[in-house]
Amino acid sequence: RVDWISNIIVVVSPENIETMKSIIEKYGHKRVTVVQGGITRHRSIFNGLKVFAENEFSNHLLQKPEVVIIHDAVRPFVEEDILLKVVMAAKEHGAAGAIRPLVSTVIASAADGSLDHSLERARYRASEMPQAFLFDIIYEAYQQCTDYDLDYGTECLHLALKYCKTNAKLVEGTADLWKVTYKRDLYAADSIIKDSLSQQVCVITDVKEEVAQVGFLLHESLKSQIQVEAISASLSKNDNHLQNILSGRCYNFVCINDKKFAIQETLQIVDLLEKSNIPLLYPVVLILVHLDVSENISLSIGMEEVTMIKKFAREVKKKNILVYGLLFQYK
Amino acid sequence: RVDWISNIIVVVSPENIETMKSIIEKYGHKRVTVVQGGITRHRSIFNGLKVFAENEFSNHLLQKPEVVIIHDAVRPFVEEDILLKVVMAAKEHGAAGAIRPLVSTVIASAADGSLDHSLERARYRASEMPQAFLFDIIYEAYQQCTDYDLDYGTECLHLALKYCKTNAKLVEGTADLWKVTYKRDLYAADSIIKDSLSQQVCVITDVKEEVAQVGFLLHESLKSQIQVEAISASLSKNDNHLQNILSGRCYNFVCINDKKFAIQETLQIVDLLEKSNIPLLYPVVLILVHLDVSENISLSIGMEEVTMIKKFAREVKKKNILVYGLLFQYK
Repeated sequence: RVDWISNIIVVVSPENIETMKSIIEKYGHKRVTVVQGGITRHRSIFNGLKVFAENEFSNHLLQKPEVVIIHDAVRPFVEEDILLKVVMAAKEHGAAGAIRPLVSTVIASAADGSLDHSLERARYRASEMPQAFLFDIIYEAYQQCTDYDLDYGTECLHLALKYCKTNAKLVEGTADLWKVTYKRDLYAADSIIKDSLSQQVCVITDVKEEVAQVGFLLHESLKSQIQVEAISASLSKNDNHLQNILSGRCYNFVCINDKKFAIQETLQIVDLLEKSNIPLLYPVVLILVHLDVSENISLSIGMEEVTMIKKFAREVKKKNILVYGLLFQYK
Repeated sequence: RVDWISNIIVVVSPENIETMKSIIEKYGHKRVTVVQGGITRHRSIFNGLKVFAENEFSNHLLQKPEVVIIHDAVRPFVEEDILLKVVMAAKEHGAAGAIRPLVSTVIASAADGSLDHSLERARYRASEMPQAFLFDIIYEAYQQCTDYDLDYGTECLHLALKYCKTNAKLVEGTADLWKVTYKRDLYAADSIIKDSLSQQVCVITDVKEEVAQVGFLLHESLKSQIQVEAISASLSKNDNHLQNILSGRCYNFVCINDKKFAIQETLQIVDLLEKSNIPLLYPVVLILVHLDVSENISLSIGMEEVTMIKKFAREVKKKNILVYGLLFQYK
């Protein structure tokens, strides 16, 4: 997704390495190196960094980067914008990390389980991920730090401060950086994904004026509510623009046609979608609209078309593409 | 729900008072007094406490309680258990509050937006709600505290400590106490409610052996997955046990019968459900199962029954009760 990142190191517990490798292969992720994690957070991160500096973990040493980003897999909604911000700040200050306001007051408890003191909420922040570092600084910090740090510490910014005297720049992050920790967070993450998938639709029409006009009207009426991309393209040609849309992150397509079940065009779209790997993650919805403006309208012809689409839909459902047919007959 | 709580004071912003009053009336909540909130958290809580001590806010002064619980409406999943724990601890120590482990490290930022220091995560806790206090202690604390406290403070435990030298007892709470803050939290809350609603089903059969036996088998096969309550009751009598179940918090009912669309029994259940106010919050699902063991099975008789149930279902849907019919014909 973010093309200025050269390498992605995924640190995984030993028992999950094979699963992770199969996920990477299945979804065709590039630039990824899988590394075995340690028994604590810091030991795992240290293992990840060693890929750029020691030969222990990989067959070929990856080229040492100027800046390295450290991120948690439990924060799946990280945007390119915040990645860029922490990287730029790290280049300037040596270290940088995303922060968020505290949701609850933080308190210190006494040994007997009673309140010792409470912190003034406005003066403190929650330290989140991503964080970025000049590689030399964070690697130096990990090399210097004690076993106690590696076993009980959790904060990379603290290591950079303690061992390299680097005061990290703090960058305000968005609410979406939260950590998927509890079952409720899985519910939330699932809803956020589904919500964003349903917020974008692509309307495809062929270039005939009548059809393109309907596409335009649909576009107009939808765009106040969701993000709509409307393309008018002759599907028989190898259209680059269409190909780009299809390899984007759109999951909903409306194809408007004035021909009876345009099988060639439909097959072409399904083919492009399949090649894009989009349907691997979530089902793609493809609504085929047939505008029938012929003089001699007959219900039996409509039924025949319905049967064809039903059969076709059953087949492509296996590819995680859900096809629906819509027939408009009018004079 | 919790019968040892004598009064519930709901503090609401001026513009929402009428809405809140109509909610209380609609759902028949008892023991509730609505009070106008202030412009900050502490000022609102103080207003709530005054109901027990000053005549300013209510026509009749409510009886001063020994212990008062302070809770946030944005933490809807509070359990009776934690309420009891903080109340018992407050009785002994004067003040008590729920805490949770920190999810992220907490840091202090310097004036220039860089890291000043990070706190050792294990030594600190997030202060959550509910909190409980001896009424005299927290009321005294609010009377003593400064305008600065009232305008910028957020932590009641801090006021009890500062003005009444009371070190609150800290009580470990459950993850469900989290604060519904962001849109993702609404998604999570919604899913948690729906999840819990779908986890309980009540199987109702009449006392005839054959029918009760089917109910028993259904009970057995379901109970490994969800919480099932099975009752075998003669529905024509005014059954107390059934009435108790229906006024509980169950949202799913399966009624098994060997008579053709048992209209009397069904109407009785719908009537009990309606009186219980359960369908006001979420739709109730009622599945009517007809076991047809008669010798002369005919499809046309089945269709007639389907039509009746469909008509009935359309009617009770307005009451937020979703009726489904299931007909088993066997020899």
